[in-house]
Amino acid sequence: MDTKSNEKLIIGVIGGKGAMGKLFADAFTDLGCKVIISDIDTEITNKELASNSDIIIISVPIRKTREVIREIVPFVKKGSLLTDLTSVKEMPVEEMTKAKDCEVVGGHPLFGPSVGLKNQNFIICKERTGEIYKEYISLLERLGIKIIYMSVAEHDMQMGVIQGLTHFSNITLGNTLQNIGYDIEKGESISSPVYLMRLYGVGRILDQDPELYSDIQIENKYARELAKKYVESSKQICDAVNAKDKESFEKIFNKSKDYFKKINKKSMKKTDDMIKAINN
Amino acid sequence: MDTKSNEKLIIGVIGGKGAMGKLFADAFTDLGCKVIISDIDTEITNKELASNSDIIIISVPIRKTREVIREIVPFVKKGSLLTDLTSVKEMPVEEMTKAKDCEVVGGHPLFGPSVGLKNQNFIICKERTGEIYKEYISLLERLGIKIIYMSVAEHDMQMGVIQGLTHFSNITLGNTLQNIGYDIEKGESISSPVYLMRLYGVGRILDQDPELYSDIQIENKYARELAKKYVESSKQICDAVNAKDKESFEKIFNKSKDYFKKINKKSMKKTDDMIKAINN
Repeated sequence: MDTKSNEKLIIGVIGGKGAMGKLFADAFTDLGCKVIISDIDTEITNKELASNSDIIIISVPIRKTREVIREIVPFVKKGSLLTDLTSVKEMPVEEMTKAKDCEVVGGHPLFGPSVGLKNQNFIICKERTGEIYKEYISLLERLGIKIIYMSVAEHDMQMGVIQGLTHFSNITLGNTLQNIGYDIEKGESISSPVYLMRLYGVGRILDQDPELYSDIQIENKYARELAKKYVESSKQICDAVNAKDKESFEKIFNKSKDYFKKINKKSMKKTDDMIKAINN
Repeated sequence: MDTKSNEKLIIGVIGGKGAMGKLFADAFTDLGCKVIISDIDTEITNKELASNSDIIIISVPIRKTREVIREIVPFVKKGSLLTDLTSVKEMPVEEMTKAKDCEVVGGHPLFGPSVGLKNQNFIICKERTGEIYKEYISLLERLGIKIIYMSVAEHDMQMGVIQGLTHFSNITLGNTLQNIGYDIEKGESISSPVYLMRLYGVGRILDQDPELYSDIQIENKYARELAKKYVESSKQICDAVNAKDKESFEKIFNKSKDYFKKINKKSMKKTDDMIKAINN
């Protein structure tokens, strides 16, 4: 795409004062696009933005997404592209497709606002695509972003594991240590590297925004199902341990060991590197 | 201690052909001690070793420890030191104290046989100490080992967290991924760093010996109790998630967040370093 065609586009970012919204608004401005934003305290309302933009990007917290989409659906400009930047895809895409006479894609940048855009992964779920969609993808590519295409269901299943299950496991360990009143600092002084890696990983998650993590766990139906599977697995292993049933424990261990064979060499290498990094 | 006094000592290592037993047997030999070993296929039996050694070190798998100690207790040389290198302490110390007229300490090297001895942590639980005990500690210090003193109960509680709970959490995640048949390689290509750190951590544990891990989980009564606490915590969080009860989820999250405050800056720094290490 050349600058001429981009100059014609108006890109509207709802939530344009948030860290992620601002990152994209500024980046598109730098590419020569006309960018307008709406946010809680802007003069432009979400409805005005929707009726005036060629690309409407919704960048609000997950828990606000449904109500924001419902608010703007009647006002979306004919022939425009409606898209979002949310960590779940089923709910927003379902809501966005209620807008008629416009293109619709779901989007999920797989990175936080602090790392910049270049070489970062960005999942796109194509729903109703046309000319404006092509312009949008071209803009993202000009920002150095790597696009990964996926269906809505595949996205939410993958994120149910990568975000949901991973965070669930970290939050559970953090909560257990808190419940038993464990002395973290004492533990650090006599710990094994594997424990330290785990402890710092939990600490990183618990330093974040609780609302984001509750949205990731609760708004993604696969994450909710995976939490149940995780509890079942932990209960099964715990039962074997408390029955002192070494045979059952080792059977579970060996099945998982076998399943992990594909990445065991890589795991040793990568964790060796991680251990060196925390020992420095 | 000077070499003269060490020359008088006979150190016997039961399980002296295993990786850990051999590491210590060789190290004491290098210090000028007279070292004898017994193992499954040695000419010297465990009983002969026990009746001829001034320091008797039991270095066998946890599941063999009780029977080996019971076998040698009637033969332990009067005035000698009986000690072990096992990852649990209540069970072996209880068994070793049944030997009369000898000194008894529990020992746990907090490292694997591949990393050498210098600057490594080694927990000692003093039970019945005297002159030979002093010689043993002096030898360990000459090897560059750092001694940490702890009661038997404190050791097993700490290891219940550092080994038991940490491994339990890793094994549970590995088992959940295996149960759902998740495509690890697909996940790697679109993963977040926090997920990758977690995945490789699980891969490292599952690459090890299942018997060691089943012994660590099952022979330590604190590890067994902590597994129950972990299941309770995961169930409580899972229930909040599946009831879509964001308030309860965030309350749990915030309590843990508050508890982790002491190490949150460190966690961010250390995990940033770990992320850099896996991206290389």
